[in-house]
Amino acid sequence: LSIFFERLAHRAQKISSQLCVGLDPLLDRLPADLPIEINSILKFNQAIIDATKDFACAYKPNSAFFEQYGQVGWQILKETIAYIPEDIPVILDVKRGDIGHTAQAYARAACDELGTDAVTLSPYMGLDSLKPFLDYQDKGAFVLCLTSNQSASELQGLQIANDKKPHHLYETVAQKAASTWNYNNNCGLVVGATHTEMLSNIRKIAPGSWLLVPGIGAQGGDLAAVLKAAKSPDGQSRFLINASRSILYASGGPDFAQAAAKDAKRIKDALAK
Amino acid sequence: LSIFFERLAHRAQKISSQLCVGLDPLLDRLPADLPIEINSILKFNQAIIDATKDFACAYKPNSAFFEQYGQVGWQILKETIAYIPEDIPVILDVKRGDIGHTAQAYARAACDELGTDAVTLSPYMGLDSLKPFLDYQDKGAFVLCLTSNQSASELQGLQIANDKKPHHLYETVAQKAASTWNYNNNCGLVVGATHTEMLSNIRKIAPGSWLLVPGIGAQGGDLAAVLKAAKSPDGQSRFLINASRSILYASGGPDFAQAAAKDAKRIKDALAK
Repeated sequence: LSIFFERLAHRAQKISSQLCVGLDPLLDRLPADLPIEINSILKFNQAIIDATKDFACAYKPNSAFFEQYGQVGWQILKETIAYIPEDIPVILDVKRGDIGHTAQAYARAACDELGTDAVTLSPYMGLDSLKPFLDYQDKGAFVLCLTSNQSASELQGLQIANDKKPHHLYETVAQKAASTWNYNNNCGLVVGATHTEMLSNIRKIAPGSWLLVPGIGAQGGDLAAVLKAAKSPDGQSRFLINASRSILYASGGPDFAQAAAKDAKRIKDALAK
Repeated sequence: LSIFFERLAHRAQKISSQLCVGLDPLLDRLPADLPIEINSILKFNQAIIDATKDFACAYKPNSAFFEQYGQVGWQILKETIAYIPEDIPVILDVKRGDIGHTAQAYARAACDELGTDAVTLSPYMGLDSLKPFLDYQDKGAFVLCLTSNQSASELQGLQIANDKKPHHLYETVAQKAASTWNYNNNCGLVVGATHTEMLSNIRKIAPGSWLLVPGIGAQGGDLAAVLKAAKSPDGQSRFLINASRSILYASGGPDFAQAAAKDAKRIKDALAK
């Protein structure tokens, strides 16, 4: 395993948590007692991190929610990443995918400039668009495989005609991420929680890969089925379940940090069962 | 046609140019007479824009090359876009693609915060990841279809099994971009110049779509074949040929702006033949 996935496994085991806390701040959803100004976002993020750090296996700031606030947003993203305690891995959700020399610049932005430990990537352009990230041996990457949005099936669900049996595009991605793209043992997958059966298919194709699983709603209906499908055949829990808004906006009042802590603990405990 | 593609067609006709000038600045390739510091990048971009504006149908700043310089880079990107003359359309090369509410934040970042006229997008997550951009009726989008990098064929070249004849993933993307994704008539395609035959296939599937074509090297070997393949069946030139490094780095000396102008004019003239 890469240094990143070793750190992740260590952290998950140490605090018995598979919870990834997503940081997707929105100015118009800040709690009532913070002034509605961009700098409040950093204070909000810091309060959320302080409140949830005992339950978070990892944090996942989403670049889009910072970019929308321009250069100040970018600075807050950097300070948010720097604020996360050293022993908690950070996955920067950027979903980049571009030609080699451009991907190299994106990798510098995420890994060097912002100092993240891992990123999410988009696979449409193939290996040489992922390589500049995967070449960082101490960093990790999660490649989009099966996403939880409604239109996901438009491309991801297409049947591929090959000489063996037809399979789907998302399964081809899983197969590549578990083999040729995994040359540094640092390539995981993003797999939405909305289709448990497809999650099982991916786990069969990529038994040892780390999965980043968004799409568990506040209610968490099918949680037991998702956990069963996400487990590796050897019984290891090589997955993170991401929750963002249910934690960040558990309360819109002055008790937002306590409410976030309570919700993070609730999800962590539900995952540990 | 959307407002964006009308503007683009108008501009192309007015100055007889299909040239898109890519702005991919690198600190370590700045001309010798500019101090090696981040603020020189803005001066460099402004000099390049001044030198090439009579030959550029559009400009395409690439977000990655600014993001690598952090918040200062983001500010320079914004000022670069603002510096481009009002009548020249700006395509921000970001290749974003994410779930709806995140795509919405990316759209705000590109369209509202940075003020671009169009963007490039990645199609792996399907329509609802593109929609927040396409919903801007006055803006345009170019969706990745066939890219010019070596690994492009890994996914884009896969054969899709359907009930008619097998076709490739990139052709499915072209077909969607020319129909369901084009509900506001503002959805174009990114098509690399490296495979002329596939470019012809795409033009058959999407006869009226605007194509953004990168991958013409400094030498421009197959230019005639590319232009023939990119033309619409009605004879209209609904395409932009992008050139970045050959123009930006035509000279590394104090004559860099004159050299850029000369190279931009050379490519514009070659495209007009």
